[in-house]
Amino acid sequence: MDVILLGSGNVATHLGKALTEVGHRIAQVYSPSKTNAELLAEALKAKAIDNLADVDSQADAYIIAVKDDAIAQVASQLPTHLKGLVVHTAGSVDATVLAAYTMHYGVLYPLQTFSKAKAVDFSSIPLAIEGADEATYVQLENLASSLSNRVFPCDSKQRLSLHVAAVFACNFTNYLYSISADILYEHNLDFDVIRPLILETAEKVMIHLPEDVLTGPAVRNDRGTIEKHLEMLEGHPDLKELYARMSKQLRQYKK
Amino acid sequence: MDVILLGSGNVATHLGKALTEVGHRIAQVYSPSKTNAELLAEALKAKAIDNLADVDSQADAYIIAVKDDAIAQVASQLPTHLKGLVVHTAGSVDATVLAAYTMHYGVLYPLQTFSKAKAVDFSSIPLAIEGADEATYVQLENLASSLSNRVFPCDSKQRLSLHVAAVFACNFTNYLYSISADILYEHNLDFDVIRPLILETAEKVMIHLPEDVLTGPAVRNDRGTIEKHLEMLEGHPDLKELYARMSKQLRQYKK
Repeated sequence: MDVILLGSGNVATHLGKALTEVGHRIAQVYSPSKTNAELLAEALKAKAIDNLADVDSQADAYIIAVKDDAIAQVASQLPTHLKGLVVHTAGSVDATVLAAYTMHYGVLYPLQTFSKAKAVDFSSIPLAIEGADEATYVQLENLASSLSNRVFPCDSKQRLSLHVAAVFACNFTNYLYSISADILYEHNLDFDVIRPLILETAEKVMIHLPEDVLTGPAVRNDRGTIEKHLEMLEGHPDLKELYARMSKQLRQYKK
Repeated sequence: MDVILLGSGNVATHLGKALTEVGHRIAQVYSPSKTNAELLAEALKAKAIDNLADVDSQADAYIIAVKDDAIAQVASQLPTHLKGLVVHTAGSVDATVLAAYTMHYGVLYPLQTFSKAKAVDFSSIPLAIEGADEATYVQLENLASSLSNRVFPCDSKQRLSLHVAAVFACNFTNYLYSISADILYEHNLDFDVIRPLILETAEKVMIHLPEDVLTGPAVRNDRGTIEKHLEMLEGHPDLKELYARMSKQLRQYKK
């Protein structure tokens, strides 16, 4: 397929690379910053544009991978009467935000965390897709299936729940890692000592369900240990409150 | 070394297996439940005992791997005038809880989560050790170093902080995984779709510091998305409150 990438951030970058690797052609890369457009376009052997009026109207697919609140704005400036698919890649934006601008709209939401520094194997990334109608869905499914073995249908409401679940399992989890790192620093211990525990905790739920492997003082209702921990966190009211709240909810959850 | 294991839970089991694998001899396994003592003793080619009066006084090391509040009680019933090391394996119990019963006391705290169902490579597990005096420390370091490449000194206060850090990075993290699983179930999505994200989030901090890879709506202060998420959690006041609190702390943390 001939694909036009609208955006030059982490999602656009990883998606663009994955698309070219499986044989699609990225015709254009748009970014309001010419420098950013050129950087990514060069890597993808595409043409860089910084003006939406220059978007080619003959592509097979237009992938809008920009900040949530810029999606509608970008879509509104695309050429009219596009034959190709127009999809966005956001978790928490309804597909219908694109409905005013084209009939062939949809969503391609990759459930993964991307960073420029680290390569990911796109073929194992779950891709949640939604199409405005059956024909659009099938077309999008073809595109998505060329990238990943894990494509599944997902309406906008389900996708929102997926994003919320991802905030808990990724963003908040990483925040907990940061808290643990800070506690270690404060006691002259290196973050490295806790890395094997972090990895094992994640690997355990690759084969178990998390509710089946809950452990720790809160689950055991080990009040003595919980008290010692709250006392240790005395100097950090926010962390103490978070520890108390999570312990309480976890204890009730386990019941 | 000739080692006596006091306890038959997850830590005792994994520690016992690791010790025999590197050539130590487990002389006895104690548990107040004869069945549990026999199960583990058989696997370790040791003698099972269910009475502390039967503990052999000639061993090189006594490892107390029981619930926190049972440690002192077990120690108090050991034979008097032991020459061997007496250590416990708990994160949040001061080493001095053993001081009344022997001079050669210490702590061997493995910073890992153990489950009976899943084998772990003990040689990469960080072992935090503490000895009552220099001679005890050196003896314990020899024992610990035969098990793992990652042995480090850690006093009781540091060890408590290590345990608190582990509660955030393991127990609470696993609770967040459970929350995400529940949100997915509720919307007819399988936990499997989020597994790659969980693993990638953990793997990312194997090479980065977590504070350097914070992402998500809270970090970007993306109020529109946060509002949508809070609305989606309307039916779950506890989760909504936890989401709001963590988002707020995370936003402040990032500053």
